[in-house]
Amino acid sequence: MSAREGAEARLARLGLALPPPPPPIARFLTHRRAGDLLFLSGQGPLGPDGRFHEGQVGSEVTVAEAYAHARLTGLNLLAVMRAALGSLDNVAAIVKLLGMVNAAPGFRDHPAVINGCSDLFADVFGEAGMHARSAVGMASLPNNISVEIEAIVAVRP
Amino acid sequence: MSAREGAEARLARLGLALPPPPPPIARFLTHRRAGDLLFLSGQGPLGPDGRFHEGQVGSEVTVAEAYAHARLTGLNLLAVMRAALGSLDNVAAIVKLLGMVNAAPGFRDHPAVINGCSDLFADVFGEAGMHARSAVGMASLPNNISVEIEAIVAVRP
Amino acid sequence: MSAREGAEARLARLGLALPPPPPPIARFLTHRRAGDLLFLSGQGPLGPDGRFHEGQVGSEVTVAEAYAHARLTGLNLLAVMRAALGSLDNVAAIVKLLGMVNAAPGFRDHPAVINGCSDLFADVFGEAGMHARSAVGMASLPNNISVEIEAIVAVRP
Repeated sequence: MSAREGAEARLARLGLALPPPPPPIARFLTHRRAGDLLFLSGQGPLGPDGRFHEGQVGSEVTVAEAYAHARLTGLNLLAVMRAALGSLDNVAAIVKLLGMVNAAPGFRDHPAVINGCSDLFADVFGEAGMHARSAVGMASLPNNISVEIEAIVAVRP
Repeated sequence: MSAREGAEARLARLGLALPPPPPPIARFLTHRRAGDLLFLSGQGPLGPDGRFHEGQVGSEVTVAEAYAHARLTGLNLLAVMRAALGSLDNVAAIVKLLGMVNAAPGFRDHPAVINGCSDLFADVFGEAGMHARSAVGMASLPNNISVEIEAIVAVRP
Repeated sequence: MSAREGAEARLARLGLALPPPPPPIARFLTHRRAGDLLFLSGQGPLGPDGRFHEGQVGSEVTVAEAYAHARLTGLNLLAVMRAALGSLDNVAAIVKLLGMVNAAPGFRDHPAVINGCSDLFADVFGEAGMHARSAVGMASLPNNISVEIEAIVAVRP
């Protein structure tokens, strides 16, 4: 991996195609920019078939499955970033993730789940994809989706 | 609605009166400004009688009731914004909401609840009130309030 | 307390020693700076023995114990700030905390728990340590830790 290789080139080399950016489902936006920060709404594991992955992680969904759901959620976040900025090459850094797991009572492995998104961003952006984050367990999520992740991104000035 | 109409004028035209800004309940603040961003502490559905609406949404509280609680929470957030900035006309944009619902197990309709706040902000600020957001389910909230919402706001320089 | 006394001097006068900054446990960072803001990953009550305090607050862990856990979490956040900025004297202000309590069903006293961290920051930074915050209840936290707190900090330009 070349340090100078841009995120769009890496994405192509990794063979990753982005989905269309998910539309907001009410009177809010998928992203709002303030200065050089881009705030992204929480996204979920929306698959290419237009359906969300559902279920509680630790009971109905395994950690390995939920890792894949977090990666898919990351692809949806990338789609929003590209739509907002024109190109992923305009991302200066991934600043912060809040990774929310629809977790069964007593679940302990939230980091292993959210790694699906963190690994994707490190793959696509290199060092610029490394971020601060929290990975925590929610009592419930909209439409019983397994994972929801929101992000703060620094934009190239 | 005129595009040039300010938020304070809209508020008046909508017949909305803001409550006094809620005081913080410990050694923290209701808001802290950093550059052109104003970070607001989570607020809840504090009514004009000085009491909070309580209960789990989906079991003790209906979605329609919780929508009204989220709107009331939004009025308390507006009161904090006005106290912090002197006037709502100094709000450049609502950037981000984290909408937290005290939700019964298996609850799926968090977005319909938090819309109570999002709709209010769109009514009061127009396009500038449209924001990124997440709407999620908490295991519990302070004093068993039904809804808590925190906000990040961009301030007119 | 002198208004001119720096945070490092206060820390020393309070007799507080910071732990080594906790390493991230996957492909993410303990902090990421964007402009004059420093975003910190969620930290937990990691003790000097290298072990985390565990358990649900309200059933297995008392509020008084959880207050101490939140204070300990605050010390770990301070350790990250010092590692990131060289000195706590480079902190301009604590901007925002998200205090997440691993709470038993029906728990109501989240603010009393997170005060352990808020009080520490007020002690160490004075007025600059006063922040916006939310204190809420999570269904579960990584490794069943009792408390997790993430922070946004303003950095002296």
